[in-house]
Amino acid sequence: MSDRIPVRIGLVGYGFMGRTHTNGYKRVGDFFPELKHRPVLKAVCGRSEQRVREFADQWGYESTETDWRVLIDRDDIDAIDICTPNNVHAEIAMAAAEAGKMILCEKPLALNAAEGAQMVAAVEKAGVPNTVWYNYRRVPAVTLAKQLIDEGRLGRIFHYRANFLQDWTIAEDLPQGGEALWRLDVQAAGSGVTGDLLAHCIDTALWLNGSITDVSAMTETFVRERMHTLTGKVEPVGIDDACAFLCHFQNGSLGLFESTRYARGHKALYTLEINGEKASIRWDLHDLHRLEYFDHGDDSVVRGWRSVHVTDSDMPYMDRWWVPGLQIGYEHTFVHQVADFLKSLDSGEPCRPTFQDAQETQKVCDAVLQSAQERSWKTV
Amino acid sequence: MSDRIPVRIGLVGYGFMGRTHTNGYKRVGDFFPELKHRPVLKAVCGRSEQRVREFADQWGYESTETDWRVLIDRDDIDAIDICTPNNVHAEIAMAAAEAGKMILCEKPLALNAAEGAQMVAAVEKAGVPNTVWYNYRRVPAVTLAKQLIDEGRLGRIFHYRANFLQDWTIAEDLPQGGEALWRLDVQAAGSGVTGDLLAHCIDTALWLNGSITDVSAMTETFVRERMHTLTGKVEPVGIDDACAFLCHFQNGSLGLFESTRYARGHKALYTLEINGEKASIRWDLHDLHRLEYFDHGDDSVVRGWRSVHVTDSDMPYMDRWWVPGLQIGYEHTFVHQVADFLKSLDSGEPCRPTFQDAQETQKVCDAVLQSAQERSWKTV
Amino acid sequence: MSDRIPVRIGLVGYGFMGRTHTNGYKRVGDFFPELKHRPVLKAVCGRSEQRVREFADQWGYESTETDWRVLIDRDDIDAIDICTPNNVHAEIAMAAAEAGKMILCEKPLALNAAEGAQMVAAVEKAGVPNTVWYNYRRVPAVTLAKQLIDEGRLGRIFHYRANFLQDWTIAEDLPQGGEALWRLDVQAAGSGVTGDLLAHCIDTALWLNGSITDVSAMTETFVRERMHTLTGKVEPVGIDDACAFLCHFQNGSLGLFESTRYARGHKALYTLEINGEKASIRWDLHDLHRLEYFDHGDDSVVRGWRSVHVTDSDMPYMDRWWVPGLQIGYEHTFVHQVADFLKSLDSGEPCRPTFQDAQETQKVCDAVLQSAQERSWKTV
Amino acid sequence: MSDRIPVRIGLVGYGFMGRTHTNGYKRVGDFFPELKHRPVLKAVCGRSEQRVREFADQWGYESTETDWRVLIDRDDIDAIDICTPNNVHAEIAMAAAEAGKMILCEKPLALNAAEGAQMVAAVEKAGVPNTVWYNYRRVPAVTLAKQLIDEGRLGRIFHYRANFLQDWTIAEDLPQGGEALWRLDVQAAGSGVTGDLLAHCIDTALWLNGSITDVSAMTETFVRERMHTLTGKVEPVGIDDACAFLCHFQNGSLGLFESTRYARGHKALYTLEINGEKASIRWDLHDLHRLEYFDHGDDSVVRGWRSVHVTDSDMPYMDRWWVPGLQIGYEHTFVHQVADFLKSLDSGEPCRPTFQDAQETQKVCDAVLQSAQERSWKTV
Repeated sequence: MSDRIPVRIGLVGYGFMGRTHTNGYKRVGDFFPELKHRPVLKAVCGRSEQRVREFADQWGYESTETDWRVLIDRDDIDAIDICTPNNVHAEIAMAAAEAGKMILCEKPLALNAAEGAQMVAAVEKAGVPNTVWYNYRRVPAVTLAKQLIDEGRLGRIFHYRANFLQDWTIAEDLPQGGEALWRLDVQAAGSGVTGDLLAHCIDTALWLNGSITDVSAMTETFVRERMHTLTGKVEPVGIDDACAFLCHFQNGSLGLFESTRYARGHKALYTLEINGEKASIRWDLHDLHRLEYFDHGDDSVVRGWRSVHVTDSDMPYMDRWWVPGLQIGYEHTFVHQVADFLKSLDSGEPCRPTFQDAQETQKVCDAVLQSAQERSWKTV
Repeated sequence: MSDRIPVRIGLVGYGFMGRTHTNGYKRVGDFFPELKHRPVLKAVCGRSEQRVREFADQWGYESTETDWRVLIDRDDIDAIDICTPNNVHAEIAMAAAEAGKMILCEKPLALNAAEGAQMVAAVEKAGVPNTVWYNYRRVPAVTLAKQLIDEGRLGRIFHYRANFLQDWTIAEDLPQGGEALWRLDVQAAGSGVTGDLLAHCIDTALWLNGSITDVSAMTETFVRERMHTLTGKVEPVGIDDACAFLCHFQNGSLGLFESTRYARGHKALYTLEINGEKASIRWDLHDLHRLEYFDHGDDSVVRGWRSVHVTDSDMPYMDRWWVPGLQIGYEHTFVHQVADFLKSLDSGEPCRPTFQDAQETQKVCDAVLQSAQERSWKTV
Repeated sequence: MSDRIPVRIGLVGYGFMGRTHTNGYKRVGDFFPELKHRPVLKAVCGRSEQRVREFADQWGYESTETDWRVLIDRDDIDAIDICTPNNVHAEIAMAAAEAGKMILCEKPLALNAAEGAQMVAAVEKAGVPNTVWYNYRRVPAVTLAKQLIDEGRLGRIFHYRANFLQDWTIAEDLPQGGEALWRLDVQAAGSGVTGDLLAHCIDTALWLNGSITDVSAMTETFVRERMHTLTGKVEPVGIDDACAFLCHFQNGSLGLFESTRYARGHKALYTLEINGEKASIRWDLHDLHRLEYFDHGDDSVVRGWRSVHVTDSDMPYMDRWWVPGLQIGYEHTFVHQVADFLKSLDSGEPCRPTFQDAQETQKVCDAVLQSAQERSWKTV
Repeated sequence: MSDRIPVRIGLVGYGFMGRTHTNGYKRVGDFFPELKHRPVLKAVCGRSEQRVREFADQWGYESTETDWRVLIDRDDIDAIDICTPNNVHAEIAMAAAEAGKMILCEKPLALNAAEGAQMVAAVEKAGVPNTVWYNYRRVPAVTLAKQLIDEGRLGRIFHYRANFLQDWTIAEDLPQGGEALWRLDVQAAGSGVTGDLLAHCIDTALWLNGSITDVSAMTETFVRERMHTLTGKVEPVGIDDACAFLCHFQNGSLGLFESTRYARGHKALYTLEINGEKASIRWDLHDLHRLEYFDHGDDSVVRGWRSVHVTDSDMPYMDRWWVPGLQIGYEHTFVHQVADFLKSLDSGEPCRPTFQDAQETQKVCDAVLQSAQERSWKTV
């Protein structure tokens, strides 16, 4: 094991994403033993000294910081993993790039495309490895979808459709802001479902179906005022509770996207469907281990949507896990992303999506929000 | 239209089955216009003069009778359709055969195999066309299953599994007996779920998978006493509320059958599954317009159960109905059986299942009930 | 039966819809015996003398016509049922109204709202009973959805979403025009999927969720030229192959609609979903006998989407059919509409949707097509 | 962290189960930080020195052994985890008990009930903590089923039904025996699907529905000869390829169990269904994060099977993982069992199922195999 190369991680933020990433770092070696680069949980950084200490204890980080600038200055940190609210991604990422650190940034890349452009410029100037945690690319069923498309099984694409439906903010007495609810605070999040949920849908779509050329969107804020956790006062809600848009893809297909936190009955229903001339594909996050596939080439009397249980060893990533029929879950997408990031260090290839890739999503999000505000079609 | 040959129907019984058969007679010409033989609703017979009259008015029968012997004696009746409780099937059928009438008999053929044997002998002696209403053979998805099996798509068969689950008799205050509830009265029904529900499962199984050689069964009566509608007294329940059995098929496959009226949540869930070396098939009555099909020959990464929506015109019977995607329902199975019966008159071929075919089911039912009683394996 | 009042039907057109309507007329009395008004199949009219004669023979019409003006002039016709291509709806309907005939018109009402307005004016001036065959309102599961909404079970509505996905025109060598393929010919159909499929979705939406205020739409024609059956030449395709739109409802909810004939794998997948504060509802035409229902009021540990098998006798229309668990199909929606139309004659109440109701759908369709053309939001 | 108590694990066997257990040990602390007892990966033991060394390297075991007797003799080992083929469970367990080690034994407990009885006696005599890895009890949906039953939500139970269907041994050229395929070798496995798959179904059933009193079973070996990996010769197959049985439970309900490795299309479809007077429950391993629940108490028009996505924090174990809608997978059942085992050490309570509990399953398996052999009902 003497040929292993440590990648000393400095994690900024210890919330939900801090946990998923850390779990990825800790498990990757057990399941991808061939990797040379190996993560080391060097330090975790957060504003609350007590809570960051508790997190470090629970998960096994060697040390803690309460100021991310200090973390970035440390010589014993190779990679900065940004798990903060969106509004500090850019500042941290640019400082980390300048310090020559590798960067793994939670999605969305930035508050907007202008910020994103600066971040892309910074990592490219610094020449540091960089990636953004659009983890759903690495659900095996989604990766398989990509593979089927690349093999040409779908033929000419006519339609792409994606939803991300949740229902957790319907209650009017849910406050906004603070550590737990920063996603409802426009200052911290930049936008509502567009940056939080649609960004995922857009990233996958760009990957599977190519560029989006123009959009027509609408947004809505159903609950217009909420108590703010930090101020203790009822304040206007600045985020979009729901967002839907029509679009055209470069390849001539039509797109339809929707996300909301007001779809009663759906916890995290990210669904996508692609209709091609020869075949179609459907997937949803609530049963993430299945891919539905329709092949027009089947004999007509036995033609139907196939429910593919993506657990066999010849399916993406699944040779690393258990045996056919035994499903993995949500968290494995992060293990896969860590593995692919480390593999990219082994090989020198970029780990997609890079900042540059994620910036494309940022541009679509900007066009969507602008279209909704101006009630007109916008070119991306 | 001068070449049409009328088949003057005399219907005995105007309950649930009287309605489904009549509906079949009335619709068949619209959807199978090529048939020469055409049903004519000549007479309906029932014990209650008022109710049989109402039925005739509603459905358009030309006349009524209250004594089935009179009906059979009538010269203007070509075919007797038996929709009575099970305990008079034999008597009516034998009289009708002797009178040279065609016979369409509701399932099960008889109270038991001994009775059934007499009925078979009677129709064979008389040489009259005869058929038994095991209507599920004519669900297009089930007929398609038969076609796929006959084409050899499944290969060697390992397993056959069927359930018929209902929940309508759980309430202890439901009475037994009388016109509406004769199925709970052992005198009228002969048995409980075995003759009512399992008989369907067995008929389909024999058709799809060949002979059953031996069985091991258990039965249960969960509610042991019920008020009897006819006597007004609480009386022992003589029927089986539930029945399950293991069996071997002649072809070496294993069978597992179960039916009950105590499966909370299932109204009429008749399901069947066949596992072959090369492919498998599943179907259930609650979504009768779908057939699930698994083909091991598919490319492994896109292999999965296919949900075939059996509504295309190249699927059995479906060229007669609407357009792809638009489902038919339960009642159409009876239209199909009427059509096939009339076609058999046109061609001179028997309409399966004949009394002889249905007698095979009767033998299995007898073996099942005997096995349950004696707690031992029984050869069919 | 002397109190029955005949409604002598004159059917114009004998295609797919001619068959479904006729089936409705023929079956309604068997299942709705309490109705006083009863349809009589008096005459069918079509341009081909031979084919209209064959249709009359098969289905039992007493007479035939080849000119709809003659049909309308006949004194022995009470009601004109319009099953022609869309481009002659208006002319026939206005002539029929002037002649004092009741009118049952296939959907969409007209080629556009301008025509529709004239038709509405004509029937209102004439004071004749009128209805439009938006049959999906009368799928029992959809009628049940309406009932649940009217009971207030959903609470404030946030989202309405509907798709109508087909795949039957993907082949480039499919011609346009003529009797079988007039839906692809813009002269006969007026529009493509918008009038054919989205009109259904819009009608149901207006009924379930109230008025639509504004729309932003896109349309696409994927195959731009097709051989024309009538001319024998390759000609431009004038219809929309796909159409999607965003909208706002009067009640503050957001709408998302899409239809296409290029969604490989879907034959006739009309789906709708409504998300309310307290509950949500989903339905799709491929399993039309099921309604999915999510009730946030359920105990949290057993809360989930309920798959309601709409076959019990306390569910809309289902007391007329079979027993729980036994599904009906597509054609029954037409039987229900005939029944409701006849009931409206018995009672003197209008049978919804009337021409006036259907005109609201026409206005939305116009706004959708205009929005797509101009790439801007349009007020309805 | 000074109050943590190490539990030094000695793992015997490094196959599929060695991996799942080890993963459980490694993850438990991250997700159950309140536990005092903590596993330490002290040693792994296997016959191949090279392979056991590779396993230790990959997973982080401190040391290796090639003789389990040596492992048991080591003073620095607190717990022996038995992941060997079934035929050495008893010998290892009894030696470990004698040495005063805690024991975690893979299922089934033993080759048969006679062996099992000795093992139970040994651990009880030694007074050592013991548990058997019937991991499916700790699928959150299954644990939730137990909770619902214990709350009395189902009422009187009528039916229990379980299947475990696989298809991985259909190919006739699959060999038997050796490290990878010992499950096909009767010497190593003791039985085929009965001990491998049905044992799981029986354990869950006894837990959820109480004792089984008698059984009638059939078994089959579809492929009667296979090349043996160890001898290189074609040898008879001694295991059961398929097994099905009927049974009665102590509580008066009927049971139906089936397992096979010849059900084409099913990889690991463990399904169970329980029908009670008031409610029913269904679950299957292919979508293990869902529980289906039918409550007869629901309003009749919205009554249906509920698909409960078991990912909310008020559901069993789910407060430890992610957020609602994000599923966990198969491996988590082992993390849960490790957690519960450690918690039992903290509390001094046994961790179910103990050897004693697992012995009940053994007795049912024995009765099943004997019943199949003798073709008669057997009392358990």
